[in-house]
Amino acid sequence: MSLVVVGSIAYDAVETPHGRVDRMLGGACTYIALSASYFTKCRVVAVVGEDFAQEDADLLAGRGVDLEGMERAPGKTFFWSGVYSHDMNDRMTMRTDLNVFADFNPKLPESYRTAPYLFLGNIQPELQRTVRAQMNGLRLTGGDTMNYWIQDFREQLVATIAEWDFLLINDSEARMLSGEQNLRRAANVILDMGPNTVVIKRGEYGAMLFRRDQYFIVPGYLLEEVFDPTGAGDSFAGGFIGYLAERGCDLKSGHVDRRDLARAVIYGSVMGSYCCEKFGVDRFRSLTRDDIERRFREFRTFTEF
Amino acid sequence: MSLVVVGSIAYDAVETPHGRVDRMLGGACTYIALSASYFTKCRVVAVVGEDFAQEDADLLAGRGVDLEGMERAPGKTFFWSGVYSHDMNDRMTMRTDLNVFADFNPKLPESYRTAPYLFLGNIQPELQRTVRAQMNGLRLTGGDTMNYWIQDFREQLVATIAEWDFLLINDSEARMLSGEQNLRRAANVILDMGPNTVVIKRGEYGAMLFRRDQYFIVPGYLLEEVFDPTGAGDSFAGGFIGYLAERGCDLKSGHVDRRDLARAVIYGSVMGSYCCEKFGVDRFRSLTRDDIERRFREFRTFTEF
Repeated sequence: MSLVVVGSIAYDAVETPHGRVDRMLGGACTYIALSASYFTKCRVVAVVGEDFAQEDADLLAGRGVDLEGMERAPGKTFFWSGVYSHDMNDRMTMRTDLNVFADFNPKLPESYRTAPYLFLGNIQPELQRTVRAQMNGLRLTGGDTMNYWIQDFREQLVATIAEWDFLLINDSEARMLSGEQNLRRAANVILDMGPNTVVIKRGEYGAMLFRRDQYFIVPGYLLEEVFDPTGAGDSFAGGFIGYLAERGCDLKSGHVDRRDLARAVIYGSVMGSYCCEKFGVDRFRSLTRDDIERRFREFRTFTEF
Repeated sequence: MSLVVVGSIAYDAVETPHGRVDRMLGGACTYIALSASYFTKCRVVAVVGEDFAQEDADLLAGRGVDLEGMERAPGKTFFWSGVYSHDMNDRMTMRTDLNVFADFNPKLPESYRTAPYLFLGNIQPELQRTVRAQMNGLRLTGGDTMNYWIQDFREQLVATIAEWDFLLINDSEARMLSGEQNLRRAANVILDMGPNTVVIKRGEYGAMLFRRDQYFIVPGYLLEEVFDPTGAGDSFAGGFIGYLAERGCDLKSGHVDRRDLARAVIYGSVMGSYCCEKFGVDRFRSLTRDDIERRFREFRTFTEF
């Protein structure tokens, strides 16, 4: 079932212990859409500048992503640059030029409005809310956020996620949002805010899913070589919601199949792990659904007892 | 099958965000033996001082632990005190009085020498080697070590673990011993040193087991309240080798049942998680095998997909 993804499309400059790239396609929306495209039809809502390259649009279109909602504005595309620490657990932002993204005011094409699945990438919470309000007949809404909105736009953020089915968040942000150090308690506080499902990403340590009546935990995939972790969390998001959309899941129901939820977390983990194997989005240029299924089975092999 | 455990028996003073205890039973050998005693007959090799309380000996004996190898020496029992950080991921050692442990020279009672299972707790590597040399007909030897021996006694340590079937080690120590940051590579380097199995503990994030042809990863159990993490790693060790001994596993064989290995890691994780629920060894005063099986099933519920 078709999925609308809202967020940034960007150019990134990245330096990791394995090398450096001065300009490559990036942005949350890009990673989420590329990743989800292996599971379901994806339609993006984003803004790019006049410098946005045709080959980058072609990469998305080549994966069947609908670009009708990708607005082209006068000016330059959002630019971000960062440097990773030796163990790649930390990164330092060197530069953020919002450019055309500064005035991003997402407008949904008519053809998007009846899509049943919506993923709201990390943007200003009020904008996330506006997008949702433009949709009719949503079956499932989920989204992401970050420390900046939690600290400085808390009230808006809380009002926004109250309308979501799931919140995807990393561990330190879950602690910040909930005020609880313990992740089990943090998840319960967030469930009280409205979402019926909370997914907490723990970087190399994996991910956890919480609902009122159940929880699921998966360890991270052990890569021998992490080339570039940029976009791994967004690729997780794409695999997670992409699989739920493929399966037609409705999280509001009390009868969600436990296995669908758990497998969505696994597919998210698979996509996040593949993303790290090359710089930027490069791994998605050759990745196949067969590769995804092979790693899904490997997850089963190394976690089953 | 019967298991010999060598290591420290101590008195600890511990402060965590939940409280403080000035003197309680502790030491690696204590935790390992108490934990393993739920699975197999345990025989300890250790030294205590004249101040060692009868009630503490009774706790061990009450769990069926053979104390014939627990030597009583003139002087005081090993004493350690530590303070945990707010999130309990770090601890600072405030005091270490080796006392009678300074001259610990483990001698095995005749009745211990034919036991098929041996776990060498974290002591001087040369002493670990001496103990192993006193045994006849060992089926399985495993052990633990720490940063101090890796840094300052590397040659002795490498010669010692070359004779073991498994090394149990935490993630930062695995990196230190192998010189590899990536844990998959670190495990391969350690496998090259002799052990056919490496188990890497990751604290709250769980544990991993590596052999040449397979690996297994389990996330940590999510406690709502960690009272005191002291002894959690040693309780893991006890559950791990205790279960292997109960099952009669021989890790040298190329035909080890994959499930036995994975389940040993789960039982280790179960015992480590229970240990954190109360101060020191207190949880073991009431813990039953039924509790252990219940949490084992819970691990299955939250990891299966």
